[in-house]
Amino acid sequence: MRARDLAVPFPAVGLDEDALTAARLMADRKLPGIVVCHGDGSPHTILPGSQVLRFVIPRYVQDDEALARVIDEQAADDMFAELAGKRVRDLLPAEERELPVVKGEDTVMEVAALMARAHSPLVAVVEDGRLLGCVTVADLLERYLPGS
Amino acid sequence: MRARDLAVPFPAVGLDEDALTAARLMADRKLPGIVVCHGDGSPHTILPGSQVLRFVIPRYVQDDEALARVIDEQAADDMFAELAGKRVRDLLPAEERELPVVKGEDTVMEVAALMARAHSPLVAVVEDGRLLGCVTVADLLERYLPGS
Repeated sequence: MRARDLAVPFPAVGLDEDALTAARLMADRKLPGIVVCHGDGSPHTILPGSQVLRFVIPRYVQDDEALARVIDEQAADDMFAELAGKRVRDLLPAEERELPVVKGEDTVMEVAALMARAHSPLVAVVEDGRLLGCVTVADLLERYLPGS
Repeated sequence: MRARDLAVPFPAVGLDEDALTAARLMADRKLPGIVVCHGDGSPHTILPGSQVLRFVIPRYVQDDEALARVIDEQAADDMFAELAGKRVRDLLPAEERELPVVKGEDTVMEVAALMARAHSPLVAVVEDGRLLGCVTVADLLERYLPGS
C-alpha cells in the first residue's frame, strides 16, 4: 500500500489567505491545525490553532493567570477582532513547525517511520509538486493494528 | 463562561490499561492522541499516536528510509503485534508530554491563555480531582472568533 492510498483530503490555506478564514476553518472542522501551502500548491508548514491564540492574546496575558481571569468579554472580543485584515503568514511563528512530507508512491511504512521520527500526527502527501492530502496517525494505526 | 461549560468528554485511559486498547481507541475515534489518567481518575499526561509508532517501529527503521521502504506486510504486522500484553505506561516516552490542566471554575480566557502559552491543542478540565473533559482549541476558536 502506498501513501496516496491512505491520504485523505485535508483543509489547506495559502500563505496570503485571510487569517480569519483560516481560523474559522479550524473551528468549523474541529481541527487542531491546518496545512499552509505556497502559491503553487506545495505544502509549506502547519498552522496550529494554538498559534492563532498566541497571536491574538497578548504575551503579558498569557503569562499572568490572574490577569487572564479578569479579561472581560468585550476585551476578549477586541483581541480576536485583531485577526481581521491579517494574512496567514502574519500568524506564523518565527520558528515554523516542520510539516513532514512524503511522495504519493512512498510506502505506508515509510510514512509511519517518518511520523514516528518527527513526532507528528500528520504527514503531507505530495504528487506533482502539489498537496494531494494528508495521512493521519489514526489512519495509520487503523491500517496496522492487529484485529483491524 | 467557565472551563466546565466548554469541556467535552474526551477518551481517556488508565496507566495500567492495555496498550492495544488505547491505540485502538485513537484509531476508532480518529484522534491524534488520548488522555492518560492515574488510577484515581486525575489526568496524568497525553499519549500521542506518534508515540505508539515510536514504540513499535524499531529506531533503526525510523532512521533509515531505504530500510523502511522494504519492510514487508508480515514484518509490519509483527512490529504492531508487539503491543499485545503491553500497558499504556510501557508506551510513554521517558520525557512525558505535559498536559495543561485547569479547574472547572476557571474562565475560558484562562483556558485560552494557558493553551497559547503551552502550545497545546487541548486542555484538561478537572473537577473534584477527576477529569471532567477537555477543551479543544477548535472549540475555543469557535467561542471567540468574530462572526461566530
